[in-house]
Amino acid sequence: MSKLNIGKNVFSQPMPLALLGTHNEGKPNFMALGWFTRVNNNPPLFAVAVNKAHQTNVSIRTNKTFTINFPTEDMIIETDYCGIVSAKRMDKSKIFDVFYGELENAPLITKCPLSIECKLHDIMEFPTNDLFIGEVVAAYSDEKYLTDNIPDLKKINPVVFTMPNNNYFKIGEKVGDAWSDGRKFEVDQ
Amino acid sequence: MSKLNIGKNVFSQPMPLALLGTHNEGKPNFMALGWFTRVNNNPPLFAVAVNKAHQTNVSIRTNKTFTINFPTEDMIIETDYCGIVSAKRMDKSKIFDVFYGELENAPLITKCPLSIECKLHDIMEFPTNDLFIGEVVAAYSDEKYLTDNIPDLKKINPVVFTMPNNNYFKIGEKVGDAWSDGRKFEVDQ
Repeated sequence: MSKLNIGKNVFSQPMPLALLGTHNEGKPNFMALGWFTRVNNNPPLFAVAVNKAHQTNVSIRTNKTFTINFPTEDMIIETDYCGIVSAKRMDKSKIFDVFYGELENAPLITKCPLSIECKLHDIMEFPTNDLFIGEVVAAYSDEKYLTDNIPDLKKINPVVFTMPNNNYFKIGEKVGDAWSDGRKFEVDQ
Repeated sequence: MSKLNIGKNVFSQPMPLALLGTHNEGKPNFMALGWFTRVNNNPPLFAVAVNKAHQTNVSIRTNKTFTINFPTEDMIIETDYCGIVSAKRMDKSKIFDVFYGELENAPLITKCPLSIECKLHDIMEFPTNDLFIGEVVAAYSDEKYLTDNIPDLKKINPVVFTMPNNNYFKIGEKVGDAWSDGRKFEVDQ
């Protein structure tokens, strides 16, 4: 067999890219986020994994709220900056225009085509990172990013990324329909 | 403000796509998976969210192992089929050629450019889904998908997908460098 064991330090190919929003000392703060996913259908829950050393880890524990904001391709430089620089060293509160929804201390980024505000539901602690489970309180978008009131990926123009080689990619063409294309396989059997 | 509250049932834009592998009654079984992420740096841990109604939920609890396999664009039909049809109704053990790594009952898909075998570390239970935390035991690829011994997204040609409109997309061009492009912002300040 041609398979190579490439070790244990592997990552989803690719990961979605978001800005994880909190309040730090009363002001908006954001970090770049790739380790997150929806985890429950009803109620809608998201999980975000945050290194124990990050200021955002402290902020979520303090405020019990966080936001997930999806940047567009033209926000890569600001987003990446939020992944490089710690709130412990630099005030990141002026990088983005923000707005607020139903929660206090949960800043949402106006320029992002999709922003989700979450209240803390639970915490799962791991050796180097903690997994914060948030219940979705509301999500926000703009008419121009929606088709039939649903976020439209091609209008959103998001970015995905890879580790450990650290590349950003845009999304390409549509290649299929989920919960549908599989019927072709069934017919062939 | 032009922002619209679009409700609570929102999803990552986009989600990565994988096949979640287990043994069911001693045979390989796979379901399509979009709700998963890396959650810990050291040791490498992944979290996969599985509906309580799925047979895979039972299988992971029974075997205490699972695999995460990333399909290529030309595997969409088989992958989608695994998301439509339950192991309770159909034997899915013959769809893919499989191989085994270090764990028992953890089938890896030969055709997938990246496959990860995990041993169960913990379970977090939610109302409709359970989150299975797996520690990476090993990951497998082929020389043709690697550059400098690291998975290369453009060689892998994976698929991402969206909910609730259920579209599959391929990856487009590289548009930046993570943990690097942000330096341009810092210089401008």
